Amino acid sequence: MSELLMKAKKAKEAVSDMLTKSTEQKDEALRFIANQLIQETPFILQENLKDIETARDKGVHESLIDRLMLNETRIQDMAGALQQLTQLPDPAGEVLERIERPNGLSIEKVAVPLGVIGMIYEARPNVTVDASSLCLKTGNVVLLRGSSSAIHSNKALVHVIHQALEQSDLPADAVQLIEDTSRETASQLFKLNQYLDVLIPRGGKALIQTVIENASVPVLETGAGNCHIYIDETADQKMAIDIVVNAKTQRPSVCNAIEKVIVHESWPKENVKELVETLQQHGVEIRVDAALGKSFPSVTVATEEDWHTEYLDYVLALKRVSSTKEAIEHINHYGSKHSEAIITKNEENVNLFFQLVDSAALYHNASTRFTDGFEFGFGAEIGISTQKLHARGPMGLPALTSSKYVIRGNGQIRP
Amino acid sequence: MSELLMKAKKAKEAVSDMLTKSTEQKDEALRFIANQLIQETPFILQENLKDIETARDKGVHESLIDRLMLNETRIQDMAGALQQLTQLPDPAGEVLERIERPNGLSIEKVAVPLGVIGMIYEARPNVTVDASSLCLKTGNVVLLRGSSSAIHSNKALVHVIHQALEQSDLPADAVQLIEDTSRETASQLFKLNQYLDVLIPRGGKALIQTVIENASVPVLETGAGNCHIYIDETADQKMAIDIVVNAKTQRPSVCNAIEKVIVHESWPKENVKELVETLQQHGVEIRVDAALGKSFPSVTVATEEDWHTEYLDYVLALKRVSSTKEAIEHINHYGSKHSEAIITKNEENVNLFFQLVDSAALYHNASTRFTDGFEFGFGAEIGISTQKLHARGPMGLPALTSSKYVIRGNGQIRP
Repeated sequence: MSELLMKAKKAKEAVSDMLTKSTEQKDEALRFIANQLIQETPFILQENLKDIETARDKGVHESLIDRLMLNETRIQDMAGALQQLTQLPDPAGEVLERIERPNGLSIEKVAVPLGVIGMIYEARPNVTVDASSLCLKTGNVVLLRGSSSAIHSNKALVHVIHQALEQSDLPADAVQLIEDTSRETASQLFKLNQYLDVLIPRGGKALIQTVIENASVPVLETGAGNCHIYIDETADQKMAIDIVVNAKTQRPSVCNAIEKVIVHESWPKENVKELVETLQQHGVEIRVDAALGKSFPSVTVATEEDWHTEYLDYVLALKRVSSTKEAIEHINHYGSKHSEAIITKNEENVNLFFQLVDSAALYHNASTRFTDGFEFGFGAEIGISTQKLHARGPMGLPALTSSKYVIRGNGQIRP
Repeated sequence: MSELLMKAKKAKEAVSDMLTKSTEQKDEALRFIANQLIQETPFILQENLKDIETARDKGVHESLIDRLMLNETRIQDMAGALQQLTQLPDPAGEVLERIERPNGLSIEKVAVPLGVIGMIYEARPNVTVDASSLCLKTGNVVLLRGSSSAIHSNKALVHVIHQALEQSDLPADAVQLIEDTSRETASQLFKLNQYLDVLIPRGGKALIQTVIENASVPVLETGAGNCHIYIDETADQKMAIDIVVNAKTQRPSVCNAIEKVIVHESWPKENVKELVETLQQHGVEIRVDAALGKSFPSVTVATEEDWHTEYLDYVLALKRVSSTKEAIEHINHYGSKHSEAIITKNEENVNLFFQLVDSAALYHNASTRFTDGFEFGFGAEIGISTQKLHARGPMGLPALTSSKYVIRGNGQIRP
C-alpha cells in the first residue's frame, strides 16, 4: 500500500476518535503544540535551514526564500496563534436549528466536523501548523500535502506536532504529512473520495486551478483576487485617493489588495490626475485604457490581458466608464469575485453596486484590504472563499464544519 | 457556437436581470407558469405521448414508463406545487448576520442567488417544472439538461414556461433547455465553470457518480440512500417492528427507505423471528449474515455486495452485532451517509449513535422515511444532500442561495 493510501486510511480511522473529544481536550492539545514548538525551536530551525540551502543552491528568488524561512520570531508567532485559537468558541456541537414537528418529532441541526480534510499548499511551512491547528480545533483530521521545497521544515513541524499530540488525548493520526511530494501522488489525492471529505488548496492561482480542474473530492476554493475600486462622479477626492492608495500599497502581495481602479468620466479630470500622481509617488506603475491614454500620454496603455491579471505588485490599471452599470459589467466580466469597492456619495449607486456585483465582499467608502477573517472579527481565518457553495468570503472556524440532523421520536412512522 | 455555449452565455447574461426582481415579481411568474400548464395540458400530453410511444417501441419497462408519463392529475399537481411555492418566504435578500466593527465598518452577510444552476436529470419530466420553479423562486437562472427519452415532454414544458415568462417581468432566458442530449455535450457542461455556478444532478447513483467524477463545476450532490436501522438489546419489540416495516415497505423505491437492519445479539431471538416473519408477510425478501443464517436456515445468506447495495425494492439484509460500536462501524463503512435510525431505550446508545454515525439524518425511535424537506417543514425540497459542504440532508430553498458580505464605511483604510 502506498504512503498516501496508508495515511488516508489511518486518517479516516482517526475520525471517530476525534468526534469523542471535548473542546477542552482539543484546546489542551493546541497548548501542548504551542509549547512544543517553542521547546523544539533549534531542531525546527536546523531542518528549515536544509530547505533554505537547497533553495539557494537552486537560485530561488529571495522573496520566495523569505516565504520558506522560519526564525525564532516566526515560531513564536505560530505558538502565539495557537494560544489565541484556544480562546475561540468551538463551532462543532453547536445546535444551529431546532424544529418541533406536529407529529412530535424533535429535530436538531447540529454542527459537526467535516471529517478528513486534505490540505494542499505551497512553500510556506507556517501553513503546516496553521492548517493543523484550525483542523484540530474544529475536531477534524488533516492530511497535509506541502511542497517538496519545504519538505524538511514540514517533516520537522509535523514531528513536533506529533510529540505534542502524544502528550494529549487526541490521536496522533489526526495530523499526518504526505512525504511523497510527486505529482502522481497529488493526482491520486484529488480523487480520494473514499477517505477525504474536502480538499483545501492554499496557494497561487495555478495550484488552485489544478485542484479545481482535477479533483473529484469537493473543494473549498480559497481564491485569487483581481479586486476593483470604482469611483463614481460624486466621490470625494481625498477619500477616494486615500482608499485607493491604501488598497493598492498597504500590502500589494495579498489577495485583497486592488489591481484595478475604474473612474466615472464625470469625476473631475484634475482628481484623476491627482490620483495617478499620488499612486506614482507611492511607486505604483500605472496602466490606462485607451480613453485615458489621451490624458496621460506618458503612461502605458493596458492590454486585454491586464484586465484579467492579479499583479500582486506595485502595478495598477485604470479604466474610464460612462456609467455605474458599465463599471459593474466590467467587474463581473474581468473580476475574480473577491472584493470590490465603490466610492460615492450616491446611495442609489451603492445599492446597484451591492445588488449586481457578483463578489464575496462589497464595500462602500472603505478599503478592500478589510476582507480578512481577523478584520471581520472571526478571530481566525481558514482562507477567503471565492466560490459560492458552503462559504463565501473570509472563512472562520465554522467553515470547517458541516452539520447533521438528529431527530428524536417515540415510535413515529410515516403515514 | 454550439447550442450549449450559446444558451450558457444567455443564462449568464440573465443573472443580473434576475437579481433586480422582487419576490412579488418572481411569485407572479410562478403563478403564470401554473396557469399556463393547466391551459396547455392538451399540448403537453400530446408531446408526452411521443416520448411514451418511443419508450414502448424500445421495450422499456412499465415502471420506467410510469416515471415518464404525464396525465391531467400530474400536471395539476405540478401547478399546485407552483402555487404553494409562492406562499413560501424568499430566502434571497435575507440578512443572515450583522457585524459592527470597532473601526465603524458595518458588515452585513446577505443571502443571494447562486447564479446559474445546471440541472442534470433523468427521465422524469416533472423535474423540468420542479427544478425551474425552485430556481426562479430563489432568483437563480437554470440550464436544464434532461434525458433524451423525455425530450418531447421537456421541450413542451419549457415552451409553456417560456409562454408564462413572457407575460411576466422575468427574463425568458432564466429557464433554458439543452436540447442536445449527447454525452459529449454533458461532458462539456460538467466543465463549464465560466458560465455555471453549480451543477445539481438528480437521478440514480450512476448519474450522480458520473457528475462527481467528471465535473469541475461545484456539485450539489443529492444522494443515494443505503439506509440502516439498528435495534439494540433494549428496543421495544412492537416499536422496532413497526418502524422497520414502515421504513422498508411504505415506499421502497425512495432513497430514505431502509435497506439494512442491524440487531444486537441480545435482542430476544423470538423478536428477531417475529421481525423476519412480519417483513416476509409484507412481501419483503430477507437476506441474513452468516451468524443469523443458523437461526434462519431457509433464508438466503447476504454477500459482501449486499451490504453495499441500495435495493430500492422489497429486499432487506439483516445483520447481527455484539455491540453498538460494531453497528456504528458497519454503518460508517457500508452506508451512504443518508439516514439511519437506532431503536432503543438506552440514552447512552442514542448519544453514541448520534455522535459517531456519519450520516445526514439520524433518528432515535422513528422511521427514516421522514428525511424529506416537506416532513421537516421546509415547504419545498431541492433534494437530499449526502455531501458535507454547503448543505446536508433535506435541502429547502435556502440551499439554492449563497451569500455576500456588504460593508458600509465612511473612508476606513487599513492601518
